[in-house]
Amino acid sequence: MAETASRPEKISIGLLGYGTVGSNVYRLLEEQSGEIEKATGAAIAIRKILVRDPSLPRAGAPADAFTSDFEDILNDPDISMVVELIGGIEPAFAYVTAALEAGIPVVTANKQLLSQRGPHLFKLAQEKKTQIRFEASVAGAIPAVKVIRESMVSADLKSVYGIVNGTTNYILTEMTRTGAPFKDALAKAQEWGYAETDPTDDISGRDAAAKMAILASIAFHSSVGLDDVACTGIEDVSSIDIAYARELGMTIKLLGVAKLQDNGVNVRVYPALLKNEHPLASVSGAYNAIFLKGTAIDEIMLSGPGAGGVETASAVASDIISIVARRTPGFLEYPVAYRDLGLFPSEDVVSTFYLRLEVEDAPGVLATIAKVFGDDNVSIESVIQKGRGAHAELVMVFHPVEERSFMAAIENIAGLSVVKSEPRPIRVEGEDGG
Amino acid sequence: MAETASRPEKISIGLLGYGTVGSNVYRLLEEQSGEIEKATGAAIAIRKILVRDPSLPRAGAPADAFTSDFEDILNDPDISMVVELIGGIEPAFAYVTAALEAGIPVVTANKQLLSQRGPHLFKLAQEKKTQIRFEASVAGAIPAVKVIRESMVSADLKSVYGIVNGTTNYILTEMTRTGAPFKDALAKAQEWGYAETDPTDDISGRDAAAKMAILASIAFHSSVGLDDVACTGIEDVSSIDIAYARELGMTIKLLGVAKLQDNGVNVRVYPALLKNEHPLASVSGAYNAIFLKGTAIDEIMLSGPGAGGVETASAVASDIISIVARRTPGFLEYPVAYRDLGLFPSEDVVSTFYLRLEVEDAPGVLATIAKVFGDDNVSIESVIQKGRGAHAELVMVFHPVEERSFMAAIENIAGLSVVKSEPRPIRVEGEDGG
Repeated sequence: MAETASRPEKISIGLLGYGTVGSNVYRLLEEQSGEIEKATGAAIAIRKILVRDPSLPRAGAPADAFTSDFEDILNDPDISMVVELIGGIEPAFAYVTAALEAGIPVVTANKQLLSQRGPHLFKLAQEKKTQIRFEASVAGAIPAVKVIRESMVSADLKSVYGIVNGTTNYILTEMTRTGAPFKDALAKAQEWGYAETDPTDDISGRDAAAKMAILASIAFHSSVGLDDVACTGIEDVSSIDIAYARELGMTIKLLGVAKLQDNGVNVRVYPALLKNEHPLASVSGAYNAIFLKGTAIDEIMLSGPGAGGVETASAVASDIISIVARRTPGFLEYPVAYRDLGLFPSEDVVSTFYLRLEVEDAPGVLATIAKVFGDDNVSIESVIQKGRGAHAELVMVFHPVEERSFMAAIENIAGLSVVKSEPRPIRVEGEDGG
Repeated sequence: MAETASRPEKISIGLLGYGTVGSNVYRLLEEQSGEIEKATGAAIAIRKILVRDPSLPRAGAPADAFTSDFEDILNDPDISMVVELIGGIEPAFAYVTAALEAGIPVVTANKQLLSQRGPHLFKLAQEKKTQIRFEASVAGAIPAVKVIRESMVSADLKSVYGIVNGTTNYILTEMTRTGAPFKDALAKAQEWGYAETDPTDDISGRDAAAKMAILASIAFHSSVGLDDVACTGIEDVSSIDIAYARELGMTIKLLGVAKLQDNGVNVRVYPALLKNEHPLASVSGAYNAIFLKGTAIDEIMLSGPGAGGVETASAVASDIISIVARRTPGFLEYPVAYRDLGLFPSEDVVSTFYLRLEVEDAPGVLATIAKVFGDDNVSIESVIQKGRGAHAELVMVFHPVEERSFMAAIENIAGLSVVKSEPRPIRVEGEDGG
């Protein structure tokens, strides 16, 4: 560890594009540079950035990092990785091809490129003994590509399906929640920034189709292109159907479905009804989720926020780090405990508690108990009181409180003569569980 | 691809232990050997297997593969990897230490070992420039270790929490579903093989605590041992509390919670109430689920079946393959489409359909429509009929059917004069979505 920390390998990146994702990648690598260096033994920095007009003022990177000439990046002998965030087929295809031709590894978030020219680029990377990684092209921060390619090799995957478009999932969630028609839910999604001004690519299912083509290709080790994916969007999903679905105990989601059957691949995108108990039915808003099923595994689900700027940047960064890791022995081979943190004492943790008490069924008991909690600065959020034979049962949920204060109060409560059971609080989690 | 396929690198494994997981690993590597060789360029085979009594008859591996002497494996110059599936601290610790000392990479599923001697073993692997991988020690087939270590480096993780013990989740799910007391639900779990005869390690939360120690160590790059994890089990969870939780719109789960706060680590296991809308609330039966939260990501959830023999074997196999991948350039660097599969035609897919039709509100209309479906061999599962002004609305859900037949029936239906709307079927997914 000492030697890698004192002489970190330097990795200089050429970044193509500096929109939301690009600037977030820049920021993330800057902010996490210390952690990344400790974890990988490499110092990663974005050295040059391709933009249309380098003279415009921009936040983050220094002005002299910007260039409008790709050759500037390609011919820079220090650049050892290219990150493509332009999107679309051209000029992205030309740039990625040139980088791979030169043996430079590429990270891309470009689903159009991958779903239409993926097999060509994979073959080129293979010939040139270099890498192409594309985690961010599929499902935002959800590491679906890595999991499928690296953890599921022996799982013999037979189907991959899920919710891979956040815009349509937001719209369908809105329609389900409010009963609004498609048009109104779309307008709201646009207002809140979940849908673009021209939402065609999302609502037609074409965005999801591109992602499913990529997922099917890597899951089944075959070449599935965008044109191989039959695709129905959500424009025709009616609020009447959503109401009937509810009557049937189901909910409507736009699904991408890739199946391996009789040695053939079937990949489609369509709105589908799912039983409310199905784990995908509760994936709401702009979230994405992917199901994996194979011979050796029953059902693995990965879910998380869809492609926002920060999430996509996080996926791009994880690809960058995975490439670096292949060059710096050590990382990935053994976990390094470089932080050596102390323990944060449980008494200082702020928690929400639930408490059930058996108490004497007499007037004033609740007031007595509430006073003890109040004196210890523990605040009650809700109470249920029920008679049970000779005793009464009190069920209380408290506002978040330092565990130290709560446990002190509990000790005082246990000492009250009106309390007939040992107080056994249970924590409530998942609100501020961060 | 051609050259690696024609002269695959040979990887010979020494397997320690041949119980449920060990024999499943053997079977999986045999069955998937073709796929694994194509994906990695390496031929992986289990060459020697350590067992107490090699003379006992065993399925799977050939009789001469078994040995009772670890030195037989350690000193075999062909063995290039050790897979430890004995469990417990000794002799597993001695064997793993000896393998790492000899520079041999190790895969282990041993949570006791990792949570009590992990930091020591990690340091040893680092010194000897070899690897130790342990995906199967945490959450069955869910690739939590790989995702945390390789996809979350830049995510700046602040908390990791979830359901990491299938036995207790099965018991709590049963208590919630049936209202049964703990004791009865435990007996049922034992009867069905979800709990062991001595279930102490699971129900006390100690099994979950070991897993949380491992997860916290890798998520926060620090050394967290089993003794650092405060732990409350489910023995005292009463069916009365479960009933009150339901009244509050919540459900009780045994959670492992690891948080990073003020540069300190707090790791605990305890039963907790979760709102029914929380994604972890619907993780039922013997399933596991893990939540990841960081600065750069909101909430990633990984879920899947807990540690059964096949799932654990699949996780062990993925570690074996990840180690092999570090030795054989190519794999992980670019995706290889070695299968070149054809497309499976959509018309041949068997699907379940939902269909809403506006029809004339007249006697005999349903019979007419049902007859057309019947003639095309499409079987109706359920019908809702509702009057809507001049017309009636028919909502039908069908039994699974080849899409070819269904689409033919739909064309006939569309031609009926009593049908007033264009038939737009929606698929129902998630039942036989395999």
